Amino acid sequence: MAGSKIGFIGLGNMGGPMAANLVKAGHQVRGFDLSPASLAHARDEGVTTSASIAEAVGDADIVVTMLPAGAHVIKVWSELASLVPTDALLIDSSTIDVDSARKAHEIAAGRGLAALDAPVSGGVGGAKAGTLTFMVGGSDEAFARGKAVLEAMGKKIVHCGTDGAGQAAKICNNMILGISMIGVCEAFALGEKLGLSQQALYDVASTSSGQCWSLTSYCPVPGPVPTSPANNDYRPGFAAALMLKDLKLSQAAANSVGANTPLGAEAAQLYSLFDGLGHGGEDFSAIIRLLRGNAKA
Amino acid sequence: MAGSKIGFIGLGNMGGPMAANLVKAGHQVRGFDLSPASLAHARDEGVTTSASIAEAVGDADIVVTMLPAGAHVIKVWSELASLVPTDALLIDSSTIDVDSARKAHEIAAGRGLAALDAPVSGGVGGAKAGTLTFMVGGSDEAFARGKAVLEAMGKKIVHCGTDGAGQAAKICNNMILGISMIGVCEAFALGEKLGLSQQALYDVASTSSGQCWSLTSYCPVPGPVPTSPANNDYRPGFAAALMLKDLKLSQAAANSVGANTPLGAEAAQLYSLFDGLGHGGEDFSAIIRLLRGNAKA
Amino acid sequence: MAGSKIGFIGLGNMGGPMAANLVKAGHQVRGFDLSPASLAHARDEGVTTSASIAEAVGDADIVVTMLPAGAHVIKVWSELASLVPTDALLIDSSTIDVDSARKAHEIAAGRGLAALDAPVSGGVGGAKAGTLTFMVGGSDEAFARGKAVLEAMGKKIVHCGTDGAGQAAKICNNMILGISMIGVCEAFALGEKLGLSQQALYDVASTSSGQCWSLTSYCPVPGPVPTSPANNDYRPGFAAALMLKDLKLSQAAANSVGANTPLGAEAAQLYSLFDGLGHGGEDFSAIIRLLRGNAKA
Amino acid sequence: MAGSKIGFIGLGNMGGPMAANLVKAGHQVRGFDLSPASLAHARDEGVTTSASIAEAVGDADIVVTMLPAGAHVIKVWSELASLVPTDALLIDSSTIDVDSARKAHEIAAGRGLAALDAPVSGGVGGAKAGTLTFMVGGSDEAFARGKAVLEAMGKKIVHCGTDGAGQAAKICNNMILGISMIGVCEAFALGEKLGLSQQALYDVASTSSGQCWSLTSYCPVPGPVPTSPANNDYRPGFAAALMLKDLKLSQAAANSVGANTPLGAEAAQLYSLFDGLGHGGEDFSAIIRLLRGNAKA
Repeated sequence: MAGSKIGFIGLGNMGGPMAANLVKAGHQVRGFDLSPASLAHARDEGVTTSASIAEAVGDADIVVTMLPAGAHVIKVWSELASLVPTDALLIDSSTIDVDSARKAHEIAAGRGLAALDAPVSGGVGGAKAGTLTFMVGGSDEAFARGKAVLEAMGKKIVHCGTDGAGQAAKICNNMILGISMIGVCEAFALGEKLGLSQQALYDVASTSSGQCWSLTSYCPVPGPVPTSPANNDYRPGFAAALMLKDLKLSQAAANSVGANTPLGAEAAQLYSLFDGLGHGGEDFSAIIRLLRGNAKA
Repeated sequence: MAGSKIGFIGLGNMGGPMAANLVKAGHQVRGFDLSPASLAHARDEGVTTSASIAEAVGDADIVVTMLPAGAHVIKVWSELASLVPTDALLIDSSTIDVDSARKAHEIAAGRGLAALDAPVSGGVGGAKAGTLTFMVGGSDEAFARGKAVLEAMGKKIVHCGTDGAGQAAKICNNMILGISMIGVCEAFALGEKLGLSQQALYDVASTSSGQCWSLTSYCPVPGPVPTSPANNDYRPGFAAALMLKDLKLSQAAANSVGANTPLGAEAAQLYSLFDGLGHGGEDFSAIIRLLRGNAKA
Repeated sequence: MAGSKIGFIGLGNMGGPMAANLVKAGHQVRGFDLSPASLAHARDEGVTTSASIAEAVGDADIVVTMLPAGAHVIKVWSELASLVPTDALLIDSSTIDVDSARKAHEIAAGRGLAALDAPVSGGVGGAKAGTLTFMVGGSDEAFARGKAVLEAMGKKIVHCGTDGAGQAAKICNNMILGISMIGVCEAFALGEKLGLSQQALYDVASTSSGQCWSLTSYCPVPGPVPTSPANNDYRPGFAAALMLKDLKLSQAAANSVGANTPLGAEAAQLYSLFDGLGHGGEDFSAIIRLLRGNAKA
Repeated sequence: MAGSKIGFIGLGNMGGPMAANLVKAGHQVRGFDLSPASLAHARDEGVTTSASIAEAVGDADIVVTMLPAGAHVIKVWSELASLVPTDALLIDSSTIDVDSARKAHEIAAGRGLAALDAPVSGGVGGAKAGTLTFMVGGSDEAFARGKAVLEAMGKKIVHCGTDGAGQAAKICNNMILGISMIGVCEAFALGEKLGLSQQALYDVASTSSGQCWSLTSYCPVPGPVPTSPANNDYRPGFAAALMLKDLKLSQAAANSVGANTPLGAEAAQLYSLFDGLGHGGEDFSAIIRLLRGNAKA
C-alpha cells in the first residue's frame, strides 16, 4: 500500500503530524489547509501542498479529512465527492457528531464512493508519534481498504461497526472518561477534607474497585503518577475545552436517540461551568480546581 | 500472634466467615450476635459463642466489631469500653459514617484503649476466602498491633492514616466505583441506541482512556467479561442497596466537611431511585436497567 | 381583518380547534392534514378542506402551520414558500427547536415573505376555548400583520423579539416549569417522610418564597388544589412526554449556544427516565411517583 | 399575654430585633448572648441583659432560642431544661436540622416541659419589622400557649404539625426556593444567548406556567422587579451561604429518611460550588453569575 496517492484536508495540530507520518510511510501526500502557516509547516514535513481542495484530491486513491466540526466535514465532503476519482476512499478522522458522520457517509454513497468515519484518540502526542487509536465505522470492504493507511498513523485500528460506529465508540469512551475523571477528582477533594492523604487514597483505589485510567494513568493530583499533567501545573494533555466538546457531542447524540445519560449530562454541565470560568485551556484533570473552589474567573 | 484471645461482635454474612478465618488461624475467638441462627452457624465454624457482649470480650486481647451502622457501633463500643481489659485493642470493621468512626475512637481513647477503624472491601466472597482488603485508620502503634489479626482475614491491609482514615478511604473508593459504574452503563445504553455493538464498545474502552474496574472486571452487559454478574441475571455480587448505603455515607461526609461532590450526589440519587423501584437486591451493575427504561416497580 | 383567507396546515388535537376558532372569527380557512379523520373533523367545524398543501395555501393572505417537529416545519415551509402569494404572511405555531425556527424564517426571507414563529401555551383546552398564549418572534411589521389573526385563537399575544424569539421564550418558560414541578414534587416527597402533612406544606409554601405555578395551580398531590390533575389520577393536563419534548428542545438550544443549564439538564434526564418507565402519557406532575418509588415499568 | 416573662438566648442579627419586638409588645425580656456587642445593642432596645443563661431563664414563662446550628440548640436546651420553672414553654426559632429539632423536643419532654420548634422566614428585614413568618411544630397545647408571643415577632404563624414539623416545612419550602431560583437563572442565561430580551422573558414567564416567587418577587436580573437584589449589585437579601446552609439541611434530612431529591441535591452542589468560589456573601440570586461564567475566584 505504500505509494498510495493521498489527499489530506486539514493540516492543523492533529492533521499536520498525521500527514507527516503518511509521508514517512512512503505515501504521496497532497495536502490542503486554509492556514498558510499550517501549509508551510506541512511542506517542511514533505507534504506536497495544494492551492485548493480540487488540486489536493483530484487524483487521490484515498482522501483523509481532519476538521473542527460536523458542519465543516459536510461542507468539504459535499465539495470533494464530485472531484475525486470514482474509486477513491474517503476517510474522516475529525471528531464530530454522529448525525453528521452519517450524513457524510450518505454524501459519499450518493457518488458511489467508499467511506469511513475514523476518529482518533491519543492527542497531539499520539499524532506525532504515530500511536493514535483509530475507531472506525463503515463497511468491511471500506475498512479493509483503509486499514493499512490508518496503520501508518496509529498503533491500534478498531473496526467498531457500520457507518457512524467509529464516532459512536469515541463519544461513548470519552463520556466514560469525563465522568470517571470528575469522580476521581471528587474523591480526592472529599478525601482531603476528611484528612486522608492523597497517596493513601491512590494506594487503595488504584488496586481496588475504584481503579480507572483517570486515576492510574492521569491522576489529577501531583505525586502518585509522575507523568500526569497535575505534575506540570495542569498543562494539557487533553484540554478541558476538548473534553467539553466531546461531552456535548455525547449529549447531542443521547438527545437525538433518546438515551438516558444523567451523569454524562452533569459532566457536560460541569465542564461547561469550568470552561466558562476561563479554564478551557487547562488539562481536563484540572477540574479538581472547580471542585475545591480554586477556580479563577 | 496466633493464640490471641479475640472477642467478635456481629456474626452475620460478613462477620461470620471473618470470625471463622480467625479460628482457622489459631486464635481463640469468642463471638456474640443477637441472632441465634448466626450464633449457631459460628459455633459450627469453631467460634466459642457467648450469651452476652460482656462474656465475649471480658478477657479479650483484641475485639472486632462488624455491625450494620454507626449508631450500633457507638452503642456497642460504649458498652465494651468498660468491659474489656485495659490493654485491649478495639477494631471496628463495619462500614459506617466517618463522624461515628471518630466518635468510636474517642470512646476508646476515653478509656485509654487503642483502636482502629478497618472497613473492608471484597464482599461475602472475600470474607469467606480470607481475601478481603482492609482500609485502616488509627495510630501507627495500634496498626502495628492489629495488622497480624487483620491478615488472618484479608489479603491486603492498607494503613490509610489516623482515626477515621479507613472509613474515609473506603467511601472515597466506593464513590468512584458507583460513579464509574453508572458512567459505563450510560455508555452502553447510549452505544446500543447508536448501533454500536457491546463488544466493540468494550474492545475500544477497555484498552483506552475509558478503562475502569467497572468495565473490565464487572462489565454491566453479558458477554465481554464472563464472570461479571450481568452474565448471571445480575445476582450480586455487590447489591445495589449496599452501593446506595456507601454513596449515602459519602454524601453525609461531604455534607459534613463541605466538600463538592456533584456526581457523587447524583449517583446517590440514581441508586436511591433504583432501590425505590424495588431493585435493591440486584447487583449494582443492574442500574443499566434503570437507564434503559427496563426497571420494574 | 375578519375575512382574511387563511391556509392552515396541521389540523390535529391543537391545530383543529385553532382553525375552528379562526372560522368562528369570520375568516375563510382552507385546511390540510395528512389524516383523513382530522380533515373530516375540521370540515365539521366549518374549515374548507383541501386535497393538498398547494390547494390550501394558493391564494392565502396568511398561512398557519401546526406540526410535530422542526423537520416537518422545514419541509412544509420549503414547499409552501413557492406556492403562496408573494405578499403572504407565514406563521408557525408548532413548538420546535430554535435552530429550525430560524431556518424557517430564512426560507421565508429567501422568497421575500414575512414570517412569525408563534408557539403557544395552554394545551388542548386553551386551543378549544381560544385562550392560548402566543409567544411571537419576528419583525415589528410581521407582528403587526399577524396579531389580529392570533387574537382569534388566543387571549394573550406577546411579541418576544426577532426571528426565533417566540420559540426561545417558550422553551425558557417551560424549562422553569419542568424544574419547578420536580422541585415541588421533591418537597412533598421529603415532607411526607418527615411527617409533614401535605396541607401544611402547601399552606406554608403557597404563601411564601416557595410559591410557584407548579404548586398553586397544578399541585402534584391531591387535595390542596382541587382542579389539579393529581385529583384525577394524573390524567393530563400536560403529558410528561410533552414536557420531555420541551426540555429536550431547551437542552438542544443550550448545547447549541453554550449556555449552562444544570438543573434543566437534570430535569430532562428525570423526565426521560420517567417516560422510559412507561409514564409518558400521564400528567407531568405524576413525576412525584418516580421520586416516591411508585413508578411502574 | 402582654407582660409575660421571656428569656431570650441568642441576640444576633435575627435574635436582637426579635427580642426588641417582644419588649415593644410589653413583655419583660431577659436576654443572653456570648457577644458583649450583641448584649449592648439589646440593652439599647430595652432588653434586660443577663450574665448567664441561668439568670436569663430562671423565672421565665417562655424561653426563646435563636442560635446558629443544631449542636448549639442541643447544648443550650440541655442546660436550660433544669433551670427554667417547671411550667415554662421552650421555643426554638433557629433554623436547624430536623433530627436535632426532635432531640430538643425530647430534652424538653424529659423534664415535662412544653416545647415548639418555630423557625422563621423573612430575614433581618422581617425580624426588624415584626413581619416574620413562623413555621411551628409541636402539640396543639404548646402552640396555643406560644402563639401570642410569636405574633409579637411575626405576621404569619403557621402550625405545621407535631415535633419537628416547623423545621420540616422550612427546609421543604427553601428547597423549592433554591431550585426555582436556579431554574429562573438558567432560563435567563439561556434566553440571553438565544437573543431573547430579559423583559420579554419576564413578561411571558411571570404571567404563565413559569411564574414563581424567585421570578416575580426576586428576579435575578436588574430591571423587571425594581426591588430585587439584582438591582443593588446582589447585596443580600438572602445570602447564598444561607441558602447553602438550608439546602444542606434538606439533604441531610433526605439522606436520613431515604427521600429522593435529585434537583435538591444538585442545587446544594451548585450553591456549594458558588460559595467555594467566594460568593457566599452575595444574594442567592447572584448564582446567575456562576451560570454565565462571571463568577470570580
